[in-house]
Amino acid sequence: MTFELSVDEFDRRDWQRTDPDAGTVRIAMVGLGWWTVEEAMPAVADSTFCETTVVVSSRAEKAEAVAATADTVTHALTYDDLIAGEATDAYDALYVATPNSLHLPYVEAAAEYGKDVLCEKPMEASVERAAEIAGIDAETDSTVMVAYRMQTDPAVRRARELVADGHIGEPVQVHGHMSQPLLEMIPDPDQWRLNPEYTGYGATVMDLGIYPLNTARFVLDADPVSVTARLESTHEAFADVPDEHASFAVTFDDGTEASCSASQNAQRTSYLRVLGTEGEVVLEPAFFSDQTRAMTVRRGDNRVEVEVPPVEQMTEEFDYFGDRVLAGDSPHPDAAHGLVDLETIAAIHEAGDTGDRVRVGDAAE
Amino acid sequence: MTFELSVDEFDRRDWQRTDPDAGTVRIAMVGLGWWTVEEAMPAVADSTFCETTVVVSSRAEKAEAVAATADTVTHALTYDDLIAGEATDAYDALYVATPNSLHLPYVEAAAEYGKDVLCEKPMEASVERAAEIAGIDAETDSTVMVAYRMQTDPAVRRARELVADGHIGEPVQVHGHMSQPLLEMIPDPDQWRLNPEYTGYGATVMDLGIYPLNTARFVLDADPVSVTARLESTHEAFADVPDEHASFAVTFDDGTEASCSASQNAQRTSYLRVLGTEGEVVLEPAFFSDQTRAMTVRRGDNRVEVEVPPVEQMTEEFDYFGDRVLAGDSPHPDAAHGLVDLETIAAIHEAGDTGDRVRVGDAAE
Repeated sequence: MTFELSVDEFDRRDWQRTDPDAGTVRIAMVGLGWWTVEEAMPAVADSTFCETTVVVSSRAEKAEAVAATADTVTHALTYDDLIAGEATDAYDALYVATPNSLHLPYVEAAAEYGKDVLCEKPMEASVERAAEIAGIDAETDSTVMVAYRMQTDPAVRRARELVADGHIGEPVQVHGHMSQPLLEMIPDPDQWRLNPEYTGYGATVMDLGIYPLNTARFVLDADPVSVTARLESTHEAFADVPDEHASFAVTFDDGTEASCSASQNAQRTSYLRVLGTEGEVVLEPAFFSDQTRAMTVRRGDNRVEVEVPPVEQMTEEFDYFGDRVLAGDSPHPDAAHGLVDLETIAAIHEAGDTGDRVRVGDAAE
Repeated sequence: MTFELSVDEFDRRDWQRTDPDAGTVRIAMVGLGWWTVEEAMPAVADSTFCETTVVVSSRAEKAEAVAATADTVTHALTYDDLIAGEATDAYDALYVATPNSLHLPYVEAAAEYGKDVLCEKPMEASVERAAEIAGIDAETDSTVMVAYRMQTDPAVRRARELVADGHIGEPVQVHGHMSQPLLEMIPDPDQWRLNPEYTGYGATVMDLGIYPLNTARFVLDADPVSVTARLESTHEAFADVPDEHASFAVTFDDGTEASCSASQNAQRTSYLRVLGTEGEVVLEPAFFSDQTRAMTVRRGDNRVEVEVPPVEQMTEEFDYFGDRVLAGDSPHPDAAHGLVDLETIAAIHEAGDTGDRVRVGDAAE
């Protein structure tokens, strides 16, 4: 079996089906927080298959201020305007980046007006509401893709190929982690990520733990069966959520076990390791979009390391979404895939409460 | 707070109390498997405070053959000779490196003849038998040290100092792992490590999982409270033990959670990471004695990496043991410390059976 990693492979778009001249999908940006303004809109401006034509916020003034920063934007709407059906001729799809518990109403509006959706992860604040989105995806003409940017990240896709091609033998164990000092990044104890009304089950598994969880699913091409977990909050800013720090173990349907952790109050760190019977692949840093990334592959005593500059993960993701919409194909990950993560996160929170193992799908609502 | 790592620090013997001319502790090597012959005896030959004067095996011929390879050895005994009290004037202490379930009889013999003991880990094959060794350590003049070689490894000691000095803030989460392809190393499905009669609870947590478990205890200076686990055996050579692959999470009494894994049928890999509120320390490779080691410390965006050549871990361990015996001080880790690991491993195996969280000390015998 050959064992080589080509640096050239790390910006390959193995997913592209559409001609670069095929046009663009016109995006309405829903929710104008820092992520949308500083990450998503610049990424779309750099993309081939998408452009931002509409911006939507709670207040008209905010929407208009953001609209003024981008030449392509023709309409600035409030959430109420969007739901009432204003400017439906000006966009083809919604990018939903509101707080978790405010995804469903805009997915419902998209379905009503025959628009597609790129919906931020986690898909909603609860299994029940995520299931409603999955129903819309399955039963209407609107297609819902969940914005797992790691699934269109070239390094992660190369890791998945290595595992699928048997370069590490049979996968055995995964370690994954993501942490950041949230209160240094956003020094406000009243932010929505710390408010269960907006975030859902908690602050950390929903926002960060979902990265090692979902990336392990993608790299292994396997789904979670059961979980154990320990959640802890001690800092007063985390008084309303159980998971300032979270550790959880996920048993997958291929027999692999993933030992994961995440924290909103720790050193900024991320990694993903997949150990197999004959080798291992390590991504570190793994999940932060602004960092130079490294992939290390070992087989016995042989070791190859490739370091790659940051890619515009959000540009990759929007272009993939645009490519599939223009091609008339369903993008992946779909809402049914996103629902499994919500069921897993609900199980992790129940396991954290009870201390015991919880089967995915069995957590109480 | 200063943030620097000096390479010179990595061979410092911060524990030494005895003058290099203080003499030696005469060791009887009990159990002459490959570890004793290829690792322990050469390490003692290189040591300052120990020398091998007696070798003990099941068969006289084997003992004599090994004795002939070392000038310092004056007596070759069988196990029965040792227990009967032969040559007690020729040694001061036993190094017990027999299969796990054969540690207790030689610790009992040491107590009977007033000898000290350096006992390999895990201390015995069950909590019950380990408790008997702890009783001997506590109640007789014989002192028992458990041979956790990582606790006298300079890199691990520097990691412990960094954590104790607050360089990573408050410890939050640990990831630890150790794996090797046992059947490639020893191509014999009938070896004792795969036989519960000799190994005790299983093949992997007892032999490899104990490294991340005990090293996390040492670096955090904390003790385990409860565990969750998943154990799996699929390869036919592991039919009699539950843990070809093992994943376990350990909650410590300082609130830290350690996500650990180990495998006797996977790529040879080891690492230990301690994440804190303000930084992290990573040892990788962590546990194999023949590898060039690296310690990486991060605080925010600052990163220091020190690479150190392999140290003779067994020489460090024997010299520490000899130092303490010659000084008349009790060496650490003692048998009470080793007993906690057996209680934790028993809990891990019960958690693997039941799927649920088990408190350390609560596992059924």
